[in-house]
Amino acid sequence: MKKTSSLTVAEIGEDELIRRLTARLTQRASVLVGPGDDCAVLQGPARGRHLLFKTDALVEGVHFLPTAKPERVGRKALARVVSDIAAMGGQPQAAVITLALPPLCAVRWVEAVYRGMEKIADEFGFSLVGGETTRAPGRKASVLINVAMTGEVEAARLVTRAGAKLGDALFVTGALGGSLVGRHLSFTPRLVEARWLVENFRPHAMMDLSDGLAKDLPRLAAASQVGYEIDLARLPRHRGCSTEQALGDGEDYELLFSLASSSVTALEIAWKKAFPHVRLTRIGHVCKKGQTTTLAGGYEHFR
Amino acid sequence: MKKTSSLTVAEIGEDELIRRLTARLTQRASVLVGPGDDCAVLQGPARGRHLLFKTDALVEGVHFLPTAKPERVGRKALARVVSDIAAMGGQPQAAVITLALPPLCAVRWVEAVYRGMEKIADEFGFSLVGGETTRAPGRKASVLINVAMTGEVEAARLVTRAGAKLGDALFVTGALGGSLVGRHLSFTPRLVEARWLVENFRPHAMMDLSDGLAKDLPRLAAASQVGYEIDLARLPRHRGCSTEQALGDGEDYELLFSLASSSVTALEIAWKKAFPHVRLTRIGHVCKKGQTTTLAGGYEHFR
Repeated sequence: MKKTSSLTVAEIGEDELIRRLTARLTQRASVLVGPGDDCAVLQGPARGRHLLFKTDALVEGVHFLPTAKPERVGRKALARVVSDIAAMGGQPQAAVITLALPPLCAVRWVEAVYRGMEKIADEFGFSLVGGETTRAPGRKASVLINVAMTGEVEAARLVTRAGAKLGDALFVTGALGGSLVGRHLSFTPRLVEARWLVENFRPHAMMDLSDGLAKDLPRLAAASQVGYEIDLARLPRHRGCSTEQALGDGEDYELLFSLASSSVTALEIAWKKAFPHVRLTRIGHVCKKGQTTTLAGGYEHFR
Repeated sequence: MKKTSSLTVAEIGEDELIRRLTARLTQRASVLVGPGDDCAVLQGPARGRHLLFKTDALVEGVHFLPTAKPERVGRKALARVVSDIAAMGGQPQAAVITLALPPLCAVRWVEAVYRGMEKIADEFGFSLVGGETTRAPGRKASVLINVAMTGEVEAARLVTRAGAKLGDALFVTGALGGSLVGRHLSFTPRLVEARWLVENFRPHAMMDLSDGLAKDLPRLAAASQVGYEIDLARLPRHRGCSTEQALGDGEDYELLFSLASSSVTALEIAWKKAFPHVRLTRIGHVCKKGQTTTLAGGYEHFR
């Protein structure tokens, strides 16, 4: 089955694998956004409303340690996907959970994972509507938690990665870097902020920062077919984090978005009133493709 | 994390685990059917149309052998979920795929899995709108394929497991048993038949047979709070299969449904015209809870 004489998944990496697998898929007319954005977007049956759809997996040993508190593991599994729904301007609606569990896994551990899930579902107003479990085979099998989620967004408020325009200001919420000190298990997805943003302004492009700005900003730029100029000295960093950590650590789950420069002042004033405790930082602006520059730059990640 | 001193997942089994995890979940008003049916049912944004939502995983070594043809593995992963959507009377709309892959997995194996997926998506008219991959950790890690799918169903055509009424006739499509000779990788989900059924008749309850009639019929009866009388001599069996195999092998992916006895003759005539090559067998009828009898019975599975 897995002929190791041929090219392996490890050799080409996840991004290239996904590119190959999804490049030639044919999408039906009801699919407004297919693979490649934070969520897929489907034409809803009601006019003016779209359905958002996303799947995401957490693997023990990759996304959380065996010693992590199970409530936090459950929370994280859902919070990551809420963050993706938020990044499209939407509202989460329902989630279905698949748990692949080693046979010796303690029931009370699994119940604690679900408690964490129920709590965040209550917090953000969606329902857990289905649960499947399967055996994770192998003696030293790891736990895998898959979450699939639907959300809704008004057609007029949908934001993808692909709409950034020349001259747009680029913003990030919160602070970046250092997620591994524990924030990756306890972060609050920016759902309230994202909904406020699309209800009051018109961000041209948006995504959540899951792999770090150095990987994610180029993705937004590529989807929008633009370049960017950013000033690394302006990056909002978590205390004790270097610029390199702010760029590359990943799992920030902050919002990155672009907005017409004419709206910048209004946004900055309104944001401070609405979210006095959440930073909003203008880190640069959108320029022509091929003219990307990073002041004080030269980081490996940006090549 | 997994304290083996406490009760384990293997000890209580999957059904009891899912029962414990989902029993106390609170469902919001938009959730019409939560965990426990073939799919969850959500109030759609359009009047008269509901959203179906389902997640399901295939694990190498559990649901398919490492030697299975990858196109067929991809097909099966989606066909199982199409069968669940069909069992609610719905039409599949979009699927998102999570692949957990060992690092040494061959890219061309994964590409072949996707070819099988694309083919069945074309066959049944839905789109693959998102793909995620993650590392399956461990040296001897197995492949896991998770599929989440949305579907649509007209409110008037929705069928759950919970509507069977006293006196209803019980039907199964096709033939049962012996899935392991290869049909579990190549079956055709009964989507066309199910849609025809809900468009032309009003089945009171329906489900697909994934774990075998002996496990699944009691589930339908429990959901409907009824009993059943079935005649094991009438079970439609695949060639070479015993009654016990027809009851217990599982992975038949045929439809089991109940219908008012007054509609039986009309159904049987219309079915023969519509599907001359698909068997339809009346296996018994619905009776009061507690009066369940299986003629020629006495099988372990039915206890």
